[in-house]
Amino acid sequence: MAMNLPPRRSTPTSDRTTVSIPRDPDFSRQLDTWRARVETEMARRLPPATVQPTRLHEAQRYSVLGAGKRVRPALVYATACTLGLNEAVVDDAACAVEFIHAYSLVHDDLPAMDDDDLRRGRPTCHKAFDEATAILVGDSLQVLAFQVLASESGIPRDASIRLRLVELLAIGSGTGGMAGGQALDLEANGKQLSLAEVEEMHARKTGALIHASVMMAAACVPDLNDAVRRALDSYARDLGLAFQIQDDLLDIEGDAALLGKATGADQVHAKPTYPAVAGVEAARARMMSLHRRALEALETIGPAAAPLAALCDWLVLRKN
Amino acid sequence: MAMNLPPRRSTPTSDRTTVSIPRDPDFSRQLDTWRARVETEMARRLPPATVQPTRLHEAQRYSVLGAGKRVRPALVYATACTLGLNEAVVDDAACAVEFIHAYSLVHDDLPAMDDDDLRRGRPTCHKAFDEATAILVGDSLQVLAFQVLASESGIPRDASIRLRLVELLAIGSGTGGMAGGQALDLEANGKQLSLAEVEEMHARKTGALIHASVMMAAACVPDLNDAVRRALDSYARDLGLAFQIQDDLLDIEGDAALLGKATGADQVHAKPTYPAVAGVEAARARMMSLHRRALEALETIGPAAAPLAALCDWLVLRKN
Repeated sequence: MAMNLPPRRSTPTSDRTTVSIPRDPDFSRQLDTWRARVETEMARRLPPATVQPTRLHEAQRYSVLGAGKRVRPALVYATACTLGLNEAVVDDAACAVEFIHAYSLVHDDLPAMDDDDLRRGRPTCHKAFDEATAILVGDSLQVLAFQVLASESGIPRDASIRLRLVELLAIGSGTGGMAGGQALDLEANGKQLSLAEVEEMHARKTGALIHASVMMAAACVPDLNDAVRRALDSYARDLGLAFQIQDDLLDIEGDAALLGKATGADQVHAKPTYPAVAGVEAARARMMSLHRRALEALETIGPAAAPLAALCDWLVLRKN
Repeated sequence: MAMNLPPRRSTPTSDRTTVSIPRDPDFSRQLDTWRARVETEMARRLPPATVQPTRLHEAQRYSVLGAGKRVRPALVYATACTLGLNEAVVDDAACAVEFIHAYSLVHDDLPAMDDDDLRRGRPTCHKAFDEATAILVGDSLQVLAFQVLASESGIPRDASIRLRLVELLAIGSGTGGMAGGQALDLEANGKQLSLAEVEEMHARKTGALIHASVMMAAACVPDLNDAVRRALDSYARDLGLAFQIQDDLLDIEGDAALLGKATGADQVHAKPTYPAVAGVEAARARMMSLHRRALEALETIGPAAAPLAALCDWLVLRKN
């Protein structure tokens, strides 16, 4: 099986890498399938809006369903696919990680945080409902994530695997992960950060949950080959940072279109991003190098890693 | 062993109940010991304030350590003691449930919620730090609660038991529990609630975590006798509501002292509480009846339940 392949000793060149793992030309259809799947699975796990407290349940569903790229569930499913797991085995993990992501967006949008009125083209949760409800939506979506993983009816059946999923998600979302990254971001406002500090902040704020997505799927394979685990770990770390840099670059390009100038938008932002600190060109170069290294890591796994390679292309080379 | 006693078929009278389970005259010293214990254990599990993000870690510790009645950890330890478990077996559960309680206080105090400036005689988290930090403190304390239960170094070692602890804590703190109760409370503001609706709100807002505290300790006993489990379940439900009614009664008495009048303070509050809806006397009667019923449930367990009986007395008959 793919997940038990021995480690490759060769160090592939970047050209060999991008060529050696095939890409599914229909990958965007695969993404749509995963998106539809996680949407259905999340809708089943969210309490119905007809059940008390109805307003909170309605606000939960509003904040989670109907929109979103579903990057993290896609990573869960692509890793499962790479490791030969049935998608049903990782539905709980895919939902849990997206519930955490959704909660973080609701809280990040609050007036005391980023104070955003719009999210995915719709009013943010605290605008559509109210601030107190938005706080509770975030709080209760976080609980739901852990509840889904711990549920007695959960899959996989093995308790030690499910406990490991809880732990991986907790590590990814706590002060060593996502919440800690958000705190570093707050602390950084108006400060001059070094590139290493920016990377550390991104590794936590975005990277940790990206990493958890991949490693949670990997944790569903009992006795996973160590070399494969290390390859996935390395892939997920590099992808997480590359994804964030691309986000910041797209943000600048969006601003550029808006402002009618091609560069300099990085200075408009008070927030330290990779392009703001290193410049757009250096940021793009770093992103492409991370992209290449993420693909190289997949070489250990071989052609079975095609879904992860395609996902890496999509996430890093995307235009929106 | 106490936890494997056969169910008692007799229906004890209330007099027999209160007499038949002995009380430790030194129980308040026992409470102090548990308080000190959970303080030490929580301090060990909270990330050091010297580690990045330092401000968030400092704010976590500020919000958790140094004050608090530690009602929920006491319930965990008292249940463990009743079931013959070593306290070390439930340290993780005691810390986890208190982390959840602490996070809920931090978020409840936020301007968009109860907008409180003081908590336990000190500035609330968002006053001592800032609102964004307080949101992240709550979010990350919640993660920490689940992380502590899922940690590979956790006790008990049995993964299925620890997974059950995660599930019980999630049920107690989600929309069917604490967060749902808070939402019902928000929805109730300015509305006329029935007594049944007030009880439902309290059962979730306070009762669910009280219940989880007892049942998490019970879950640490493999193959717990069903009758004992039912007795603990019943005890915890009645105690949870009695505790909340006492809280509301003390609040009124506090107001009475403050306002210089003995009754009528219930109307001062827009929030529907048991005394506000049913009147002070009916509330006190309901509380005493719940107290009696909680003690009756312990009869099934017998004298081993002395710590839970003493705790019930303390929580319901307390004066502050």
